[in-house]
Amino acid sequence: MSNLKAYLTACQNRVERALDARLPGENILPQTLHQAMRYSVLDGGKRTRPLLTYATGQALGLSEDVLDAQACAVEFIHVYSLIHDDLPAMDNDDLRRGKPTCHKAYDEATAILAGDALQAMAFELLANDPAIQAGAEARLKMIAALTRASGSQGMVGGQAIDLGSVGRKLTLPELENMHIHKTGALIRASVNLAALSKSDLDADVAKKLDHYAKCIGLSFQVKDDILDVESDTATLGKTQGKDVDNDKPTYPALLGMAGAKEKAQELHEQAVASLAGFGSEADLLRDLSLYIIERTH
Amino acid sequence: MSNLKAYLTACQNRVERALDARLPGENILPQTLHQAMRYSVLDGGKRTRPLLTYATGQALGLSEDVLDAQACAVEFIHVYSLIHDDLPAMDNDDLRRGKPTCHKAYDEATAILAGDALQAMAFELLANDPAIQAGAEARLKMIAALTRASGSQGMVGGQAIDLGSVGRKLTLPELENMHIHKTGALIRASVNLAALSKSDLDADVAKKLDHYAKCIGLSFQVKDDILDVESDTATLGKTQGKDVDNDKPTYPALLGMAGAKEKAQELHEQAVASLAGFGSEADLLRDLSLYIIERTH
Repeated sequence: MSNLKAYLTACQNRVERALDARLPGENILPQTLHQAMRYSVLDGGKRTRPLLTYATGQALGLSEDVLDAQACAVEFIHVYSLIHDDLPAMDNDDLRRGKPTCHKAYDEATAILAGDALQAMAFELLANDPAIQAGAEARLKMIAALTRASGSQGMVGGQAIDLGSVGRKLTLPELENMHIHKTGALIRASVNLAALSKSDLDADVAKKLDHYAKCIGLSFQVKDDILDVESDTATLGKTQGKDVDNDKPTYPALLGMAGAKEKAQELHEQAVASLAGFGSEADLLRDLSLYIIERTH
Repeated sequence: MSNLKAYLTACQNRVERALDARLPGENILPQTLHQAMRYSVLDGGKRTRPLLTYATGQALGLSEDVLDAQACAVEFIHVYSLIHDDLPAMDNDDLRRGKPTCHKAYDEATAILAGDALQAMAFELLANDPAIQAGAEARLKMIAALTRASGSQGMVGGQAIDLGSVGRKLTLPELENMHIHKTGALIRASVNLAALSKSDLDADVAKKLDHYAKCIGLSFQVKDDILDVESDTATLGKTQGKDVDNDKPTYPALLGMAGAKEKAQELHEQAVASLAGFGSEADLLRDLSLYIIERTH
């Protein structure tokens, strides 16, 4: 895993630069809005979704250069969802990644608008960022994939299911359905945008990558639930135990802590199994799957 | 104008059907979210932006059939912006088009998510709605145009400028800059999406249509400010005098009522002048420009 750590750091730096270059400067009008967007995006997050885009690209022999815009697009969607999710009317979180949430650092109205603008920017990148080498048809497929992953039957739908489930005892299938939408859809999009960047990709290979993404999307969430119980606030960068406090359904609550950990391990093994047709070029994807269930924050 | 009235009604009915057909059914999960989206979109609004899309299509000899998705896309963006604009953290409006605003009829969290999902759906339509006959390159140009019109340097940017201007005395250029972004950008996009639907459109014609759209985008806002002072709450469908109460900058406040009306008239004349190269096929655009400054709500 030591190679992975170095790669992660290099990749996170690359993403940071790519995001920075694509965000409007903080002196461009309207300044407060652009400052709020930059504040929320440029904070050195884990960048799990962009990492998945680049790692999928590596498995397919694509240069990182042709994936910067796709990586930024998924991260913009992710960050916009965090900004809106943190609002008082939603999760009412004061801390995100160890610093005040957007509506705390600015104000609620600015946070709503910053999220809205980041969503528009994600699709703008896919429509005309010159770094993307794929043709017009492929760009349209990327936009269709990312809109589906983000919309009412993707990520936003998952948040709505989550809202509707607070205080209610979910079954395991219901909990999985929520996560498949809330976090899984965008993680799958992160992988699929890279797959769509490869011209003439074999449909079977695309399907296997999508299955990999499905598995790690879920293992990511199982691990998040585990961390929410086990980590302290300082390590996690957000208020610890919050999900349990809010009586939100979690994997440890449904399966017990041991059961949740077993579930994460199983999903990791399924993810790796779906990459059986790949050689060492997919090692990064394999390592990332392990990293997701072993991370401490 | 009697022909126009009949056309407007027919067109509004067409838009209503097109929107209805494209929105997820209210029994599709997550139901509350989809109900909130349908509640906000399907309320028989004026549909000014879709009307402009169809009217521009008529001026260019395009069938309405190939413009339904573009018309719906701009309307989805418009409605999402209204939902977010009405939130307590923004304008805090209880009434919209004579009925409770989305966060009043549902709750704030649902309203935030409904707006977010509508934005994603707008771009999804442009990416893959089968009604659009234009090729992939043209679709990408539409998406790029609509993202720019919606984002931090378009509509959302205009709302941020608006937020930052409450209680401050704006100059006329500052006020215009706000409106050019806040409402003008999306109105221009409504016209430009139709122009982009015509293959091999002459660049000069496209420019003239864009200038027309710029003029009516501004006259629309001048008229809105006038109506906000002159209409009563029942006719307007929203709380009357709200902008003045909030000490928001308005055209009547800056130019006086007579000056504001003169401004609206001038903009209408400019809009019509920019259509000089068109024959009777652009009469609808001319009539719409007049309608915008003569409407009573």
